[in-house]
Amino acid sequence: MQQPPEGRYGDAMRHALDIAARGPVTGGNPQVGCVLLDADGTLVAEGWHRGAGTAHAEVDALSRVADARGLTAVVTLEPCNHTGRTGPCSEALIAAGVARVVYAVSDPGENSRGGADRLREAGIEVTGGVLADEVSQFLEVWLTAVRRARPWVTVKWASTLDGRVAAADGSSRWITGTAARQRVHEERAAHDAIAVGSGTVLADDPELTARGEAGELLGRQPLPVVIGERPVPDGAKLRRHPAGLVETGTRDLDRILTDLYSRGVRRVYVEGGPILASAFVAAGLADEFSIYLAPALLGGPKLAIGDLGIPTITEARRLRLLSIESLGDDLHLTARPQED
Amino acid sequence: MQQPPEGRYGDAMRHALDIAARGPVTGGNPQVGCVLLDADGTLVAEGWHRGAGTAHAEVDALSRVADARGLTAVVTLEPCNHTGRTGPCSEALIAAGVARVVYAVSDPGENSRGGADRLREAGIEVTGGVLADEVSQFLEVWLTAVRRARPWVTVKWASTLDGRVAAADGSSRWITGTAARQRVHEERAAHDAIAVGSGTVLADDPELTARGEAGELLGRQPLPVVIGERPVPDGAKLRRHPAGLVETGTRDLDRILTDLYSRGVRRVYVEGGPILASAFVAAGLADEFSIYLAPALLGGPKLAIGDLGIPTITEARRLRLLSIESLGDDLHLTARPQED
Repeated sequence: MQQPPEGRYGDAMRHALDIAARGPVTGGNPQVGCVLLDADGTLVAEGWHRGAGTAHAEVDALSRVADARGLTAVVTLEPCNHTGRTGPCSEALIAAGVARVVYAVSDPGENSRGGADRLREAGIEVTGGVLADEVSQFLEVWLTAVRRARPWVTVKWASTLDGRVAAADGSSRWITGTAARQRVHEERAAHDAIAVGSGTVLADDPELTARGEAGELLGRQPLPVVIGERPVPDGAKLRRHPAGLVETGTRDLDRILTDLYSRGVRRVYVEGGPILASAFVAAGLADEFSIYLAPALLGGPKLAIGDLGIPTITEARRLRLLSIESLGDDLHLTARPQED
Repeated sequence: MQQPPEGRYGDAMRHALDIAARGPVTGGNPQVGCVLLDADGTLVAEGWHRGAGTAHAEVDALSRVADARGLTAVVTLEPCNHTGRTGPCSEALIAAGVARVVYAVSDPGENSRGGADRLREAGIEVTGGVLADEVSQFLEVWLTAVRRARPWVTVKWASTLDGRVAAADGSSRWITGTAARQRVHEERAAHDAIAVGSGTVLADDPELTARGEAGELLGRQPLPVVIGERPVPDGAKLRRHPAGLVETGTRDLDRILTDLYSRGVRRVYVEGGPILASAFVAAGLADEFSIYLAPALLGGPKLAIGDLGIPTITEARRLRLLSIESLGDDLHLTARPQED
């Protein structure tokens, strides 16, 4: 009697998922893990993807065995069928002579999908959907970005409890404490790009780098994206950003997101100001919220969110809180739009 | 060798504090507990105050013994020296012939203080300050109100995460869910009065009663206080409020609070609208904040807090969070102004 696929390859897939998480969340490619099993089901090699331009998980695993003929490859994502900076994994698996491929989630990418069919054509036994729910959740941000062909958008702000991001004179340093501000740097490093409005650049001359507690640059730097028609001044700090600089020259958010996606950006961190944050929310383009609340009140005109074009209470944008955390004296909330 | 007072009467005082908490937090008088000990330190009777117009804790305890001569009274608050709706406790203790009185905290009341001196004049041994810190904390709200001769003010609002209390058209039912709204009813019942602006009465025609989950009136109803020059309409629901109705005819908050204090109000719950809440905050008259945050965004002009006259970030009103609680989908924060 044959075991169900989950029972037979579930443990190997869970291990593949564990090692997938060793890879970076940024960089355009998903976090993928792969293990190779022999005919007895014993693990003989493992691999994971270490970031754009490096070997995919399957190729990484194959490189660790002298002879892959007859092995089973258990991989968290359907092997790609696409030649990018590296060759298609489907062809690598065929060439290596593996007997069977088990994967969790289908690749939704317009250019990369179809690997399972290609493998089957080559006579390889292929099973999809093993641990699909867990892996889908793990890859949710990347899968959503690829399905929509636009980056996942995290809208962040730091406000007082009455929703202000600055005092009447525009001063805002600092509303939140050091622990909250350090968390923002970590969140920057976990996104491919940071978007700000051109008005914020002109007003604040921000650096938009991801820094550590001692002020040092972190290893991964998000691409700064300045949204709006006004150019970034020559002397602006952003002109010296280690990841370069994108000036959109437009406020057309759909166009901007499509363009960023084509540059490999899968996660955008929208950092301000209020006009830009409100525009993303009003357009229904905010996939996640990262809200820092300082236990303070300011009153006055400098609001985190301006107008959203919501006429009546039944049309309020309802969110689902994912987490609530105390950071020093401040609160950090993460939330996503409630499913309709 | 004599034990320190804390050691000798600490346990009895802790018990007196426990039973003090059985009394109501509202009603003008503090929560007080009293135990009577014989010469061996054995508890022979206990009493606590059950609300304005009923026996004070000392008299309640004395009523439970046939002969109090030679006993020690351990009481959380200095016995009062004041004839209100009941006679002074100092005289009752003297008449009963107790040998010793041990108390935690001095009575700061202009009319009621001096009980310890009166007892000493009558030849009774008196010790104050036993468990003073714990009892002071327990009675903080009442002690603060009496020291300032004005009620403790709790400012409450329910807003979205972007600080809105209503949509653009004024609709606000409901921003928060049932669990949060039920908590508001409990908070109303724990205050002597609810203050609202006359504009809120004209716009919303609120009931301002404290109700249970089935909509039934709770046993204690706060006095509704309408602040402003405009009269409450004849047909308004507030005119049928079970606790009566106060119309201030003025927006002079100091005068209003002094008047409420003279009526026995020790805790005021400021429920809205935003103009009134902002006025209390701007005047430095908010002693506590009860903030309900719904995981939603509204944008637009209906803010929980309007202008506070704060020009720059260093003058932000910094708060100290006391508690964070999830109520259904909502968050409930309580906070107090940070000490300077």
